[in-house]
Amino acid sequence: MPQTMRERNALPIGVFDSGLGGLTVVRAIRDLLPAERLIYLGDTARVPYGTRSPETVLRYAKACTKVIVQEGIKALVLACNTVSAVALDWLRAEFDVPVLGVIEPGARTAVSATKTGHVGVLATHRTVASGAYPRAIASLNSRIEIRQQAAPLLVPLIEEGWIEGDVPTLVVRRYLESLLVDTRIDTIVLGCTHYPLLKPLIEKEASTLVKHKVLVVDSATQAAQELADFLRERQLSCPDDARGDLEVRLTDRPAQFAEIAARFLGEHLEPDRIVTILIDV
Amino acid sequence: MPQTMRERNALPIGVFDSGLGGLTVVRAIRDLLPAERLIYLGDTARVPYGTRSPETVLRYAKACTKVIVQEGIKALVLACNTVSAVALDWLRAEFDVPVLGVIEPGARTAVSATKTGHVGVLATHRTVASGAYPRAIASLNSRIEIRQQAAPLLVPLIEEGWIEGDVPTLVVRRYLESLLVDTRIDTIVLGCTHYPLLKPLIEKEASTLVKHKVLVVDSATQAAQELADFLRERQLSCPDDARGDLEVRLTDRPAQFAEIAARFLGEHLEPDRIVTILIDV
Repeated sequence: MPQTMRERNALPIGVFDSGLGGLTVVRAIRDLLPAERLIYLGDTARVPYGTRSPETVLRYAKACTKVIVQEGIKALVLACNTVSAVALDWLRAEFDVPVLGVIEPGARTAVSATKTGHVGVLATHRTVASGAYPRAIASLNSRIEIRQQAAPLLVPLIEEGWIEGDVPTLVVRRYLESLLVDTRIDTIVLGCTHYPLLKPLIEKEASTLVKHKVLVVDSATQAAQELADFLRERQLSCPDDARGDLEVRLTDRPAQFAEIAARFLGEHLEPDRIVTILIDV
Repeated sequence: MPQTMRERNALPIGVFDSGLGGLTVVRAIRDLLPAERLIYLGDTARVPYGTRSPETVLRYAKACTKVIVQEGIKALVLACNTVSAVALDWLRAEFDVPVLGVIEPGARTAVSATKTGHVGVLATHRTVASGAYPRAIASLNSRIEIRQQAAPLLVPLIEEGWIEGDVPTLVVRRYLESLLVDTRIDTIVLGCTHYPLLKPLIEKEASTLVKHKVLVVDSATQAAQELADFLRERQLSCPDDARGDLEVRLTDRPAQFAEIAARFLGEHLEPDRIVTILIDV
């Protein structure tokens, strides 16, 4: 363990995701906290988590968290809604490191954005089934009406790079038609870290469908802000000024992963910053 | 080990797939060989394989094959094109059980069907990258022209149950536009055991696009036929007349898996015939 406060504060922040979508959260953290060192772990050998059982999600999350905690980190961000929805409490109890999820930040963003008090949630099957967003939103404001819609095709569409044109438009429209049966919804929270790449399309289609402006929010910016607040309150902020390193660890090297990663991250990743590691589960 | 020939022949046949799509092969086997007992293993905790690296596919296939072989089987069918493309030779060398894949049956079906000598292949990223279909087809008839197209969105579409209507039509059309740049293609082989559920749509769209009849073939029927031939030649056929049991083992219980399974299998699966097992990899 590092001995001095300076050494402790210079430790990296861990960011864990089921795959590559969590790099949208990394991007927001690097924009807000450029000096912080980040270690990203994406479980690309087992992605997607959003269609699996809670038991399996928890098993994978435990194994991956163990590996990233062993690297020596000062905090862990679960940059995956499915993991945050299913495993957050368990990981907080089990590991001796502060753990932050993305559900609460997303819920907070939605609650502060809605004017009608009607909020929609687009997420994976597992996140919807967990009820994590309705619980988090209700704990902030119990009068808000919440409607959820599972949107399992959005992740494969985004990974295929189809983020505009006729196919994503039709798919988004079909999910929104189910979600916006409640036409008073004025805020949709994107409950999956992949979805921000479809944000402009979702916002446009939703607003067209209900004939009023629908705001689409995601948790990345708010999660980065809550991480910054947390580090400041605990006096854990990085002592350096230089831009912090980003190291990326993946459990598999899927086809085109470098291009997909760059799309989420908004910056080019040098090949030597991506390391494949084996995690047995 | 069983002592008598009768005991040996009464052993079940193992069928291994990355998920639930291989149940289309089970269906063909049960149609042709109704008396045979079948044990199906679907690695639903790690599906899909088609986007992963060859190393990871091999690692998963080894772990799953070990488990199903330990059950005591007289033959193993790899009802997954990705596994057949990447791991067949390795599994044959490593395990003391006859192993049959689906690539050669699919290639044989395509070669005997084509009249123009131009064959198209729709498959996962990994199966396309492996070159297994071009190799298998060339070894049967080296003059056949082959064109491949990866179609990664078809599996999630099928798992979502969207097999007709505007979205699957547009997605299929986009992949076919790339594949059918060679307009002399008259036969398309479906190189993924999920795809048969989209066969009518693919056949219709392909024929419309090139303005002549395009035959769409899959490997399930031919794979079942080659299994039947193999059992007869080796004198391994089941000695009983009654309809054989089908036992289904899955490594995870995803949402709606019973409905999806029934769709591939074409028969209802009693809940007590589906057992979840844990395979650590």
